[in-house]
Amino acid sequence: MQSVLPDAWAPAVAGAIAIVLVVLVALVTRNVANRLITRVVRRASSSNGSSIAGRLRGKQNIPLEGLDAVAAERRRQRAETIGSVLRSVASVVILGTAVLTVLDRLSVPIAPLLTSVGIVGVAVGFGAQELVKDFIAGMFMLLEDQYGVGDVIDAGAAAGTVEAVTLRITRLRDNDGRVWYIRNGTIVRVGNESQGWARAVVDVPVAYASDIPAVRELLQQVVDDMWKDPAYRDAVLVEEPQVWGIEQISDTAIVFRISAKTIPSRQSEIARELRLRVKSALDRAAIPIAG
Amino acid sequence: MQSVLPDAWAPAVAGAIAIVLVVLVALVTRNVANRLITRVVRRASSSNGSSIAGRLRGKQNIPLEGLDAVAAERRRQRAETIGSVLRSVASVVILGTAVLTVLDRLSVPIAPLLTSVGIVGVAVGFGAQELVKDFIAGMFMLLEDQYGVGDVIDAGAAAGTVEAVTLRITRLRDNDGRVWYIRNGTIVRVGNESQGWARAVVDVPVAYASDIPAVRELLQQVVDDMWKDPAYRDAVLVEEPQVWGIEQISDTAIVFRISAKTIPSRQSEIARELRLRVKSALDRAAIPIAG
Amino acid sequence: MQSVLPDAWAPAVAGAIAIVLVVLVALVTRNVANRLITRVVRRASSSNGSSIAGRLRGKQNIPLEGLDAVAAERRRQRAETIGSVLRSVASVVILGTAVLTVLDRLSVPIAPLLTSVGIVGVAVGFGAQELVKDFIAGMFMLLEDQYGVGDVIDAGAAAGTVEAVTLRITRLRDNDGRVWYIRNGTIVRVGNESQGWARAVVDVPVAYASDIPAVRELLQQVVDDMWKDPAYRDAVLVEEPQVWGIEQISDTAIVFRISAKTIPSRQSEIARELRLRVKSALDRAAIPIAG
Amino acid sequence: MQSVLPDAWAPAVAGAIAIVLVVLVALVTRNVANRLITRVVRRASSSNGSSIAGRLRGKQNIPLEGLDAVAAERRRQRAETIGSVLRSVASVVILGTAVLTVLDRLSVPIAPLLTSVGIVGVAVGFGAQELVKDFIAGMFMLLEDQYGVGDVIDAGAAAGTVEAVTLRITRLRDNDGRVWYIRNGTIVRVGNESQGWARAVVDVPVAYASDIPAVRELLQQVVDDMWKDPAYRDAVLVEEPQVWGIEQISDTAIVFRISAKTIPSRQSEIARELRLRVKSALDRAAIPIAG
Amino acid sequence: MQSVLPDAWAPAVAGAIAIVLVVLVALVTRNVANRLITRVVRRASSSNGSSIAGRLRGKQNIPLEGLDAVAAERRRQRAETIGSVLRSVASVVILGTAVLTVLDRLSVPIAPLLTSVGIVGVAVGFGAQELVKDFIAGMFMLLEDQYGVGDVIDAGAAAGTVEAVTLRITRLRDNDGRVWYIRNGTIVRVGNESQGWARAVVDVPVAYASDIPAVRELLQQVVDDMWKDPAYRDAVLVEEPQVWGIEQISDTAIVFRISAKTIPSRQSEIARELRLRVKSALDRAAIPIAG
Amino acid sequence: MQSVLPDAWAPAVAGAIAIVLVVLVALVTRNVANRLITRVVRRASSSNGSSIAGRLRGKQNIPLEGLDAVAAERRRQRAETIGSVLRSVASVVILGTAVLTVLDRLSVPIAPLLTSVGIVGVAVGFGAQELVKDFIAGMFMLLEDQYGVGDVIDAGAAAGTVEAVTLRITRLRDNDGRVWYIRNGTIVRVGNESQGWARAVVDVPVAYASDIPAVRELLQQVVDDMWKDPAYRDAVLVEEPQVWGIEQISDTAIVFRISAKTIPSRQSEIARELRLRVKSALDRAAIPIAG
Amino acid sequence: MQSVLPDAWAPAVAGAIAIVLVVLVALVTRNVANRLITRVVRRASSSNGSSIAGRLRGKQNIPLEGLDAVAAERRRQRAETIGSVLRSVASVVILGTAVLTVLDRLSVPIAPLLTSVGIVGVAVGFGAQELVKDFIAGMFMLLEDQYGVGDVIDAGAAAGTVEAVTLRITRLRDNDGRVWYIRNGTIVRVGNESQGWARAVVDVPVAYASDIPAVRELLQQVVDDMWKDPAYRDAVLVEEPQVWGIEQISDTAIVFRISAKTIPSRQSEIARELRLRVKSALDRAAIPIAG
Repeated sequence: MQSVLPDAWAPAVAGAIAIVLVVLVALVTRNVANRLITRVVRRASSSNGSSIAGRLRGKQNIPLEGLDAVAAERRRQRAETIGSVLRSVASVVILGTAVLTVLDRLSVPIAPLLTSVGIVGVAVGFGAQELVKDFIAGMFMLLEDQYGVGDVIDAGAAAGTVEAVTLRITRLRDNDGRVWYIRNGTIVRVGNESQGWARAVVDVPVAYASDIPAVRELLQQVVDDMWKDPAYRDAVLVEEPQVWGIEQISDTAIVFRISAKTIPSRQSEIARELRLRVKSALDRAAIPIAG
Repeated sequence: MQSVLPDAWAPAVAGAIAIVLVVLVALVTRNVANRLITRVVRRASSSNGSSIAGRLRGKQNIPLEGLDAVAAERRRQRAETIGSVLRSVASVVILGTAVLTVLDRLSVPIAPLLTSVGIVGVAVGFGAQELVKDFIAGMFMLLEDQYGVGDVIDAGAAAGTVEAVTLRITRLRDNDGRVWYIRNGTIVRVGNESQGWARAVVDVPVAYASDIPAVRELLQQVVDDMWKDPAYRDAVLVEEPQVWGIEQISDTAIVFRISAKTIPSRQSEIARELRLRVKSALDRAAIPIAG
Repeated sequence: MQSVLPDAWAPAVAGAIAIVLVVLVALVTRNVANRLITRVVRRASSSNGSSIAGRLRGKQNIPLEGLDAVAAERRRQRAETIGSVLRSVASVVILGTAVLTVLDRLSVPIAPLLTSVGIVGVAVGFGAQELVKDFIAGMFMLLEDQYGVGDVIDAGAAAGTVEAVTLRITRLRDNDGRVWYIRNGTIVRVGNESQGWARAVVDVPVAYASDIPAVRELLQQVVDDMWKDPAYRDAVLVEEPQVWGIEQISDTAIVFRISAKTIPSRQSEIARELRLRVKSALDRAAIPIAG
Repeated sequence: MQSVLPDAWAPAVAGAIAIVLVVLVALVTRNVANRLITRVVRRASSSNGSSIAGRLRGKQNIPLEGLDAVAAERRRQRAETIGSVLRSVASVVILGTAVLTVLDRLSVPIAPLLTSVGIVGVAVGFGAQELVKDFIAGMFMLLEDQYGVGDVIDAGAAAGTVEAVTLRITRLRDNDGRVWYIRNGTIVRVGNESQGWARAVVDVPVAYASDIPAVRELLQQVVDDMWKDPAYRDAVLVEEPQVWGIEQISDTAIVFRISAKTIPSRQSEIARELRLRVKSALDRAAIPIAG
Repeated sequence: MQSVLPDAWAPAVAGAIAIVLVVLVALVTRNVANRLITRVVRRASSSNGSSIAGRLRGKQNIPLEGLDAVAAERRRQRAETIGSVLRSVASVVILGTAVLTVLDRLSVPIAPLLTSVGIVGVAVGFGAQELVKDFIAGMFMLLEDQYGVGDVIDAGAAAGTVEAVTLRITRLRDNDGRVWYIRNGTIVRVGNESQGWARAVVDVPVAYASDIPAVRELLQQVVDDMWKDPAYRDAVLVEEPQVWGIEQISDTAIVFRISAKTIPSRQSEIARELRLRVKSALDRAAIPIAG
Repeated sequence: MQSVLPDAWAPAVAGAIAIVLVVLVALVTRNVANRLITRVVRRASSSNGSSIAGRLRGKQNIPLEGLDAVAAERRRQRAETIGSVLRSVASVVILGTAVLTVLDRLSVPIAPLLTSVGIVGVAVGFGAQELVKDFIAGMFMLLEDQYGVGDVIDAGAAAGTVEAVTLRITRLRDNDGRVWYIRNGTIVRVGNESQGWARAVVDVPVAYASDIPAVRELLQQVVDDMWKDPAYRDAVLVEEPQVWGIEQISDTAIVFRISAKTIPSRQSEIARELRLRVKSALDRAAIPIAG
Repeated sequence: MQSVLPDAWAPAVAGAIAIVLVVLVALVTRNVANRLITRVVRRASSSNGSSIAGRLRGKQNIPLEGLDAVAAERRRQRAETIGSVLRSVASVVILGTAVLTVLDRLSVPIAPLLTSVGIVGVAVGFGAQELVKDFIAGMFMLLEDQYGVGDVIDAGAAAGTVEAVTLRITRLRDNDGRVWYIRNGTIVRVGNESQGWARAVVDVPVAYASDIPAVRELLQQVVDDMWKDPAYRDAVLVEEPQVWGIEQISDTAIVFRISAKTIPSRQSEIARELRLRVKSALDRAAIPIAG
């Protein structure tokens, strides 16, 4: 390392120059790295963001005004969140290298420092695996835009409406009002109920002796009426509900199944309405429910 | 390392100066690190703390007097707890480095020391992973203010009222009076029941032959009466309870569901009151409960 | 390293030449590596792709027009996805080596840099295991063409129609409209329901006192009629449905089983149709269903 | 290392002095470390111990005579147990370092020794992780005074009365007389039933047709009588038992719930007494129990 | 390393010779290694393969014509699959060593290259564990010939007919037509239903009041008739079915058990036939089935 | 290392002396280590062993003649088992070090040896973790005398009578005669049923309409009679059985609970005797059992 | 390493001698190691094998002719299996060391080779953990003679008759004829049903109103008759069956339990015979079975 020392003063001068150079290079590198990260993250998330809007728009006949704005905002926030973490990591690496190089140039022994940091580092490193996993998982969730604030998701450990997404945790509020904090790294699969459509499935058990074709026609009539009702058609229902037929010949009943495609988060409501209408229709036709 | 030795006395003098310098630098660095940590932690937790008050205030029409003071106190405590640990870690690293550097300057062989410490360190390090995980998890829980003393939480392994939160464990007391000690690192998700609101859900099974519209109206009447009752309105109920309709056509009954949003921790009480009122109303109307 | 230094200027010249050489070699190597990767991946996926078409064609008598085109397109996309990742890894290794070599030639101390990168690298490395697992799993899934967009799969954590496959995750939409994001590395086994055929199994419980041979004949008649129906034969059914006989003498009934092989994704529909026809036939023959 | 050798005799003399110095420093350091550990552990456990007495005293109106003495004794024992282990670890590190340094000074090659110890050490180290985990878990359990001999705890794997607590295991005796040995490291959460109070919960199912208000009043009468009974008031019951109302409208009964707070470990007895009194009262009032 | 340099030209000449030597040795070594691997693998798998034929032939009286040919073909394929992987690994090691040696001889600094490869290697290495596990598991499965294409196996995650076995995955098709891809490393135990024989077990519940010896005799008559039927004897049944006696005196019936040993994959068919015959016989003898 | 070479012969002489010294030191050290281990292990297990006798004697009024002899023998065996393993480990470390030192002194290059051993060692080391865990667990089980031959234990994976305890496994025989081999490292908690006492718990369901006080008195009479019976008192029963009262008001019955403390392993017998006597008493008093 | 070079020819000669020496030492060492391994393994397994024969002979009065021969053969096979693996490992270590030493002596740079092998080695090493675990588990299973070919075992993942035991896997055939391959390392506990004796347990439910003493006497009569029957006494039954008394007073019946100790694998047969005899006896005595 002392390979450029012609006379007595030279080493000091060369050392000072080297230190200044190191600091300059470090600052420039950090600047470049930050800009690069910002640009890459922005592009990565914007390309995904737009595809969401497209995905939603392409698959259902529902007005999506404002969705582009929402998507743009979500995109911007994601880029910001991810970028800040990556910029921190890059800064730590670059400045750490610079400090170590300068110390080395000054002939300060850095082995003891590395030893201390190393021992503590390894001790913490093993324990921090989970933390890094959470951050990596969070980063990809954001990049892939798996869900955002306001979506209803099933994250395995808990299900509910997303209230906040950070790189480490996702905060949900479930139906009972409980607020759940879930570490992103523990989520192996996410089910998002707010993308595209949802399906309401209603099972209707009728007695064995029932007139099967009559029951089928009656159920068809119920779903036809519902589809004609302007309060549901297009506003909630995405397509006409369907009577799927006999789902089961169990030892207690003949079970018919009705399926209805709705816009997201309205399937429970539609299912209850369907049950009400079916019950009334069966009562009117005097067809006994199994039991 | 002996690269600055002009004559016979010089090395000793240079060594002494170096040692003094090392000690000075270590003390200054430690001082600076401590202040830095204190400031960063305080800012991190204060920024979060305020958002909690905001969160609570923004989402329900309930007086939040005193909440700012509570939040400020919790914020201060959290900053203190986290700061003390980080300061300990920083001191260990800095002083350890200083000691090793001084020993090295004194030509004391430090390899044997490092070897001894290393072997014990690795042996302990693997076993201490869990400990570090607990501390990291605890630190983030506090920083994110997931819960505090007095909150009712579901931590997976146990559920109850929080009695104490340290960096390593959370102490709960459940409904039966059992005191639970849970390691923070084993908590993968936390459900906090004391933030915002809670929901009471009451299922009412009625016989198949019941007059469905009449039952529905009767249940609506019950929840209307309850909403008009000043003992519940605003004091406990956050909004008017709702009759959600037929939840299930099971093989034994038609099940109606009623939902009521309450302030936290009062949902069981409201559910019991609702059951009492529904039972009385059904008795009065002579509608048989399924069975 | 300074082994080729004849006179004073020589080292600088030699160094400059060495640096240029290093850069040239790096660029050439990277170019060669990229081409090699592209070719290998394309061949690997194309060889597999063709075998799929063959597999499908060889095992069922259903027109497979267009399947070759689809397979070719899927093959091309897979080659593209995998190739881009491998090319990135190769570039990082080659350019990283070149940078380090140049720095070393310039007598820049690279130990501090390696130390910084190393500490951060290990910290991240442990946490990134899962990520690498996901990518490796995704790469092999694509190479082996386990499933593609549009297939109905059971991935353990969720089941549904594949909407997208990336190297890290698979996106499904289940029957209820929920969109699932599943990390590829967490999928230990995949069941693909869209390859070849599916089977509908219908269990028919009849009373103990039933005339067993008569029931058997009646069921045989039902499946014969169905097989003769041009709406099902060949279009949906792959071969004539079979009456498998008495599956169970339980304590409540004698259970007959009927099996029907259909083209993929139509088995539920066929099962419902079979139940309808069996129920009608039993009613006509006045054979009581068990219960 | 041979940097201080002026003439022929000097090295031997210097070596001898160095060795004596090393031994002296090691003994002094060990002595200091032991005292330090003793003092720190004693303070840590005593500060916690007092908080327990305070915790118990502050939350219930039950005489706590003798509790201070018990707490002091438990505190002393814990300090002793933890201190002895820490002192052993410190001694091993310090004496190991001293031995290696002396060997090194004597020009004995220590690399082979380190190699042998290292290979065996790594082999054992991986397997000993669990052991270290157990000790660390035990140490914190003792420091946090989670439970002591005589407490009734639920440790997950088994529940019962604590008979012994060591750093590695906890010994319980369950209700059937079985003695359980549980490794401390496998206990992720502990429920201590002997701190403060316990709750007895009694569910009373009554027939659908029962006069609900009358049942409620009757149950209230039962708990009032019990609270007035000096055999229970204050001696066992911590506060008046409460009738919580209708807990469930199941398909077989209307279920009332009574709750009673007792001193620890007496809840089963109180629950049985409550059931007896409720049964008698219902019999007297001729209200049929559901069934 | 430059220890053999007599005069100025010598090093270059010696270097060139060394490089040529290295390349030659590498090529020869690789050639030898490949042949060795081929021979060893072929012998290992052939010795196993023959034992299968022997195993099957020794245990049942069923013609095994053609089994030797099948075994030989399976043996050849396995040797080919395993050999190709081992040859790739050997080539990578040998050629990698040669390249590094040549670079080192050419005074090219290889430390930077190793560093780059090392960092990427460790990152990938952790994630690739699962991959290596899959390959090792696959290799041993093939060597031990646990199953082959066409066997019906239960692999835990799924059960069905094997369609393909590679070193990484096993492809099955289950009864419903689903195609399963299972990673070999996740299979902890495999049950092969296609080796030797299978057993059909039929439970016959009869009423408490039945004449037990009469039932027993009647069942014995049924299995005797079946054994005499040339359509089953030897063709499907391996030995005469046995009436095992009263398997259970449950609270609903006296359960008799019949057992029949069949050739592989025919047990369901035999069980159904047995149920049919038993039901007819009981009907003829007017013995009521329990229920 | 060649730092002590004055003239031509000196090195050889010094080397020879050094080698002799190394061998002598190794033998002496090994001898000392073995004695030390023997003494420490003997003391550790004897101190525990005596505490068992004390534990048993202190807690029940049952003659414990011969227990001291048994304890002494078990103590001796344990000391022997543990000591032999520790002595083997110490010998391997000491002799390994000696061999390496001698080889090093002889200028034999030991790096290749270390490399070979290291590669194989790491490969085996990872796999041997479980083995080391088993041994460590076994060693502590023996030291803590958790159970011995003849005890009835519940080890989680299986329960039965201990037939053998080695450092690696525990061999049990369960009630059905199955012999279980359980690896010590997989036992997370052990329940020993042979220490002190066992409890028989008998639940007696009576009809709702029963005269509760009369039932209670009758049950009390049964347990009084049993306690007076010399065949049970003191010989089997440790204290008078107790009638605990109404354990449950279920939807089918009022359930009384009786508890009896017995000497170990006799609880089933006592429970059966109690059931017989209760049934007879209820029959005599014409109180109907619920059902 | 070139420390012994007096003149120009000396190094070559010394090198040649050294190489010859290395090869000789390696061959001798390997030979010695192989013999040592053979002897140690043979002694270890023979000492265990004899103890099995003793174990079996000591605990039951059943002729054990031929058992010694079987034990001797099993002992020999085990010694062979284990010895061959250990010898392979020893050979790899010794020859690998020799090759590296020779290369080093020839001034061939071995660092590149070690690097290549190391990178591949680590990659494979992690994945091969499971393999090593399987081998270690298999080795100890054999040494401890936990089970052998022909034993009926419960290995957790599957249960059946052992058909083959290798160091890596155990092959079983279950009752249904399925052949199971289980990796030894995944077996945490093994239950061997073929050692010593087995127990048949028969539960007999009788109606509440039954005359309990009469039932007891009748059951005693049944087991007495069976014990007197020469077809069972000594040939199958190990001791007289016992009537254990009332096992349960459930809400549907009084359940008596009978226990019979048999020789291994005959317990099902005895249980069926007992059920048949009990049923006949109860029928003759006109005691109704519960139900």
